Amino acid sequence: MNTFGQRFRFTTFGESHGKALGCIVDGVPAGLKIDEAFIQREMDRRKPGKTKYETGRKESDTIEILSGVFEGLSTGTPIEMILFNENQKSRDYSNIKDLFRPGHADFTYFHKYGIRDYRGGGRSSARETSARVAAGAIAKLILQQLNINVQSGISEVGGIGSLDYDFEYAKKSEIFSLDSTIEQKQKEMILKSLNEHDSIGGVAVIKASNVPVGLGEPMYHKLDGQIASAMMGLNAVKGVEIGDGCVSSRSKGSLNNDPISPQGFETNHSGGILGGISNGDEIVVKVYFKPTPSIFHEQKTVDVHNNATVYNLKGRHDPCVAIRGSVVCESMMSAVLVDMLLLNMNSKMEYIQKIYK
Amino acid sequence: MNTFGQRFRFTTFGESHGKALGCIVDGVPAGLKIDEAFIQREMDRRKPGKTKYETGRKESDTIEILSGVFEGLSTGTPIEMILFNENQKSRDYSNIKDLFRPGHADFTYFHKYGIRDYRGGGRSSARETSARVAAGAIAKLILQQLNINVQSGISEVGGIGSLDYDFEYAKKSEIFSLDSTIEQKQKEMILKSLNEHDSIGGVAVIKASNVPVGLGEPMYHKLDGQIASAMMGLNAVKGVEIGDGCVSSRSKGSLNNDPISPQGFETNHSGGILGGISNGDEIVVKVYFKPTPSIFHEQKTVDVHNNATVYNLKGRHDPCVAIRGSVVCESMMSAVLVDMLLLNMNSKMEYIQKIYK
Amino acid sequence: MNTFGQRFRFTTFGESHGKALGCIVDGVPAGLKIDEAFIQREMDRRKPGKTKYETGRKESDTIEILSGVFEGLSTGTPIEMILFNENQKSRDYSNIKDLFRPGHADFTYFHKYGIRDYRGGGRSSARETSARVAAGAIAKLILQQLNINVQSGISEVGGIGSLDYDFEYAKKSEIFSLDSTIEQKQKEMILKSLNEHDSIGGVAVIKASNVPVGLGEPMYHKLDGQIASAMMGLNAVKGVEIGDGCVSSRSKGSLNNDPISPQGFETNHSGGILGGISNGDEIVVKVYFKPTPSIFHEQKTVDVHNNATVYNLKGRHDPCVAIRGSVVCESMMSAVLVDMLLLNMNSKMEYIQKIYK
Amino acid sequence: MNTFGQRFRFTTFGESHGKALGCIVDGVPAGLKIDEAFIQREMDRRKPGKTKYETGRKESDTIEILSGVFEGLSTGTPIEMILFNENQKSRDYSNIKDLFRPGHADFTYFHKYGIRDYRGGGRSSARETSARVAAGAIAKLILQQLNINVQSGISEVGGIGSLDYDFEYAKKSEIFSLDSTIEQKQKEMILKSLNEHDSIGGVAVIKASNVPVGLGEPMYHKLDGQIASAMMGLNAVKGVEIGDGCVSSRSKGSLNNDPISPQGFETNHSGGILGGISNGDEIVVKVYFKPTPSIFHEQKTVDVHNNATVYNLKGRHDPCVAIRGSVVCESMMSAVLVDMLLLNMNSKMEYIQKIYK
Repeated sequence: MNTFGQRFRFTTFGESHGKALGCIVDGVPAGLKIDEAFIQREMDRRKPGKTKYETGRKESDTIEILSGVFEGLSTGTPIEMILFNENQKSRDYSNIKDLFRPGHADFTYFHKYGIRDYRGGGRSSARETSARVAAGAIAKLILQQLNINVQSGISEVGGIGSLDYDFEYAKKSEIFSLDSTIEQKQKEMILKSLNEHDSIGGVAVIKASNVPVGLGEPMYHKLDGQIASAMMGLNAVKGVEIGDGCVSSRSKGSLNNDPISPQGFETNHSGGILGGISNGDEIVVKVYFKPTPSIFHEQKTVDVHNNATVYNLKGRHDPCVAIRGSVVCESMMSAVLVDMLLLNMNSKMEYIQKIYK
Repeated sequence: MNTFGQRFRFTTFGESHGKALGCIVDGVPAGLKIDEAFIQREMDRRKPGKTKYETGRKESDTIEILSGVFEGLSTGTPIEMILFNENQKSRDYSNIKDLFRPGHADFTYFHKYGIRDYRGGGRSSARETSARVAAGAIAKLILQQLNINVQSGISEVGGIGSLDYDFEYAKKSEIFSLDSTIEQKQKEMILKSLNEHDSIGGVAVIKASNVPVGLGEPMYHKLDGQIASAMMGLNAVKGVEIGDGCVSSRSKGSLNNDPISPQGFETNHSGGILGGISNGDEIVVKVYFKPTPSIFHEQKTVDVHNNATVYNLKGRHDPCVAIRGSVVCESMMSAVLVDMLLLNMNSKMEYIQKIYK
Repeated sequence: MNTFGQRFRFTTFGESHGKALGCIVDGVPAGLKIDEAFIQREMDRRKPGKTKYETGRKESDTIEILSGVFEGLSTGTPIEMILFNENQKSRDYSNIKDLFRPGHADFTYFHKYGIRDYRGGGRSSARETSARVAAGAIAKLILQQLNINVQSGISEVGGIGSLDYDFEYAKKSEIFSLDSTIEQKQKEMILKSLNEHDSIGGVAVIKASNVPVGLGEPMYHKLDGQIASAMMGLNAVKGVEIGDGCVSSRSKGSLNNDPISPQGFETNHSGGILGGISNGDEIVVKVYFKPTPSIFHEQKTVDVHNNATVYNLKGRHDPCVAIRGSVVCESMMSAVLVDMLLLNMNSKMEYIQKIYK
Repeated sequence: MNTFGQRFRFTTFGESHGKALGCIVDGVPAGLKIDEAFIQREMDRRKPGKTKYETGRKESDTIEILSGVFEGLSTGTPIEMILFNENQKSRDYSNIKDLFRPGHADFTYFHKYGIRDYRGGGRSSARETSARVAAGAIAKLILQQLNINVQSGISEVGGIGSLDYDFEYAKKSEIFSLDSTIEQKQKEMILKSLNEHDSIGGVAVIKASNVPVGLGEPMYHKLDGQIASAMMGLNAVKGVEIGDGCVSSRSKGSLNNDPISPQGFETNHSGGILGGISNGDEIVVKVYFKPTPSIFHEQKTVDVHNNATVYNLKGRHDPCVAIRGSVVCESMMSAVLVDMLLLNMNSKMEYIQKIYK
């Protein structure tokens, strides 16, 4: 169950403090130019320690391709990408070895598997998402060939946000903020959390443009269903919306329906998806992140023998996981779209005739 | 792609106005008592035409089991359940045959497949969800054996709602309202929509109790990811939350983390899921439905040749799809949980030894 | 696990003496003309009771399509096909209810599931293959559009056979014999088995012509691997060969390699598959059927309480299951090829550009 | 499609002359002792260059575990194993770069993908099977916990063989021969092939003992079907038999049925599988390998522009791939059995109650 996707598939491995993390990307069509520098740039966008708004922990996150590429092109065979962990220093884990950190997956992993790699959260660490970004970068290379563009940014930090989305601005913002007019307040909110030894939630918006009509496989692999699964499956995500999302539950049909004209849809309340299939309009997704559970307050918890104890965090942590999380959302969106592009090629006899005749 | 689930799997078929709808449920463990009356009761909860708050269209939705059950017990072989359409009268579809109804899937199905069964929305009709309820009823029979309880209700209609959830009350409410003190206002909102020839959105809450710790298969079949996919893939759903959901994006770690005591989690902001795995607490999911796109206003649209035209709806429709939709959410939640229960049986050597030694 | 295929998928249901059998075929590209008469003719080729070389039991095997087809064309939605059992007379099963018929699946189904539908073998009956033929007929309709031809016939009955394959002759032969010069001897062998109240094994050959180069998805969904799985999974099949098959294990590389010339492969020892991918040559598969386990001799067995007993068969049975089995092999081969055709459409960027640009 | 299995799943990557090969094994139950020395011993059994009957090419095939194991135990998370290629010397490939080696997958890979890594066969090289052996070794560690034993050996080389199988002897034999009385003749046959610059086919037998009744998931993941797929998908395999296999097609029901007594099956013509489900008896599978296509004769072929040319092989190659292939068959059989063991845990309510109550 560590495999994502149907036709564009990636399988990931690795623990936060193990020897390496990585993925096998399967189903990459042959003949794709593999731009390694681009993949590394994607890795760098997610990597920690770039600004004061992120964890101070630094990792170079250098990705290496071990297979599936020959003379710069994909060969149709699986692409293994690997990321060796650099700082495997024998840290002292005695303070978390036997207890469950509140808000983390320690409790559930321990009870599900009867054993857990407690070093830095092991497999449940957000560090796993680095492998998703590597896979997503390959997806993006495919999307680029079709001029499909996936972008992301932060719309809200701790409730401070707006509906003005400037995705170009977000690329330059240290916190990927979508609105330059409120960015400063969002930054202050993050620093305030840091000063209070606390953390803060946030919201990412992901937008895909120039998506062809027809992506999505009803009934149980609809485009919106797959996006929801991809996003909700990310660390710290607790809510996902498509288009107007929750707001549409307070609306009327006469306001919420998007009128259609020969030039296209006149509004986009739907977020570019109707009946689980892309309608050609921009796909807009909002992803709600909880505050990172790693805070520097003393917290009540139990140990593995279910005795009451308290937990005092050491180390360095992102005060607002939504920020780096937005990059991962973008990667996942890209992977979903490529998967859907491949699946949709089987949708009608006309396409089959085009390939085989 | 008309198959849901990994180990508890159902595959559905059928169009709104075709000969029949139904499903094959595969992976039902052998030896389960199949209570047909219970399955029919579940069908009846979703069936249209029960109250004045629903479409006036009446269908008996009588389910018939064709295979997989012998002498009242499941045999481990696929269970086919079928629902014949009664009212296949040769209605006049000339007004929708060549145009796309705004807010519906007509446009996307037509462009994806190059052909569509335009009668009542064909496969994209919410009538398809009747097959999900049949499959979900089988899932519930399994959950009952383990004393796991899945309930649902309506928390909001057109923005009118509360956070007081009384699931027992919802069972008796004509609109499955979770709060008796606001039910009347919610009903009035629905009738107002009807009078205005409009429709209205709503929110369903689904709760699962007594779920064992350990359900969910990281990384890409996490419990929250699969729930999100199951819910977002339903007709008219535009947002899904787990636990505190979107609200947690405005919270701090010190408030949002659930402290752990020897008696269990002291709060349940997480909605019963940590790291994609159930933590033994109640699982709470909120599902946001847009207003049904079928309204009786004249709407701008195009025909299949992309010429501008207008659409005037005839027929009968639910003013608030969230109501009957909540039953389907409950069914999907049940199916997800059973699938996860089966998958989790492979999680540790201890379980394997238990079965084979 | 009652679903076959990845992209062209069918899920079957039904027991030998239940209410109905059938399948849902998912992944049929939209816009395919569904020739119902053709599907019925395929059903008729497999149906029992046509000649004295088969079981005397007669069934009309009339297939009905319940969904997925609109105005004669596939719509891209699942196609349900159903076959109601006509002779559900309340036969007396007391002689087999509590014992295990040697050579049959009674023993294994009972132990796996703890319960079994003992009427006529239940789900394990070869009658299940009728659903495969229905699904295979849809596959054939797709193959016809691409001028791909799948044929079959019987090469051996009880060891009497030849390497002269005349697939046109087989179509007219009562026992689908591939060689008119030995057909009479094969028929006599079958009648001799009948007279001796015994049964006899046989071999079917399946040939696919005009298959494009490139079908097969290494490593674990290779064309030969999928064919082997499809055939070995059929009732009574105990051996599968591709091309020269077992004989090649006694050959030398210098004899077994197929030289390549600009006009194509000069020989076809490989059976049209290299590295698990079709090479454009004819695909040739041999399928070895054991004698039907249903014989009219008294046989030693045990009952469900593991007490020794004897079994005396009543009823009517095919003396040589290979004959009607060959039709099912043809259906499965067709399904595999369509699945591979669909999968292969994702193999290179060139194809993706063709569809989306 | 580089993933094998449903619940015990492995995904492989790597090319013959790329940087590395390896696999991610997913679905390993937590709490399994991971004996790295055992895994390496399995690798060593398959590795080339051990005797004069194999290719002279030497590779150390040292496996390294990168994830999924903590303090010697599996954690339930994916296990990545990697094998770095040592001899990546910049060989001269000009003689094979632009032509297709007869009997190899060069032709089909090139046409399917439009590009191929021609160095040593790239992904289609039998070197890929090293990753299968690593995954199979993990499967064997699980089987050992349940006292299930999988063994293999060579029954035939170039037609020289017997039906006397001594699996203990095979372990010590340089050519894994199952019969000490004919081993010498088999060895001579191999050396004769070498001297003639030719190659020779062979047959492997795989036996699994102490397999519980009930493994196999009808209809489309039957045990025999999955074994057939696993074996036929191996390089050079052209035929697969279960139990009496092809011979049963020449038999009668009265001879071929296995009588059942309270002590078990009295004969084992079935090879331990009835109706696609294990019956508790020994599972016996025969796998037929063609002669390795790499021979030192001049061979007719074409180049990538379809011009006639000749091919003269350089390098070192196994004269009889069946020998090392038998180890891979054993690995695949082990993987299939573990997958089936996991799947079967969902077969009845009784098992579910056992785990969850």
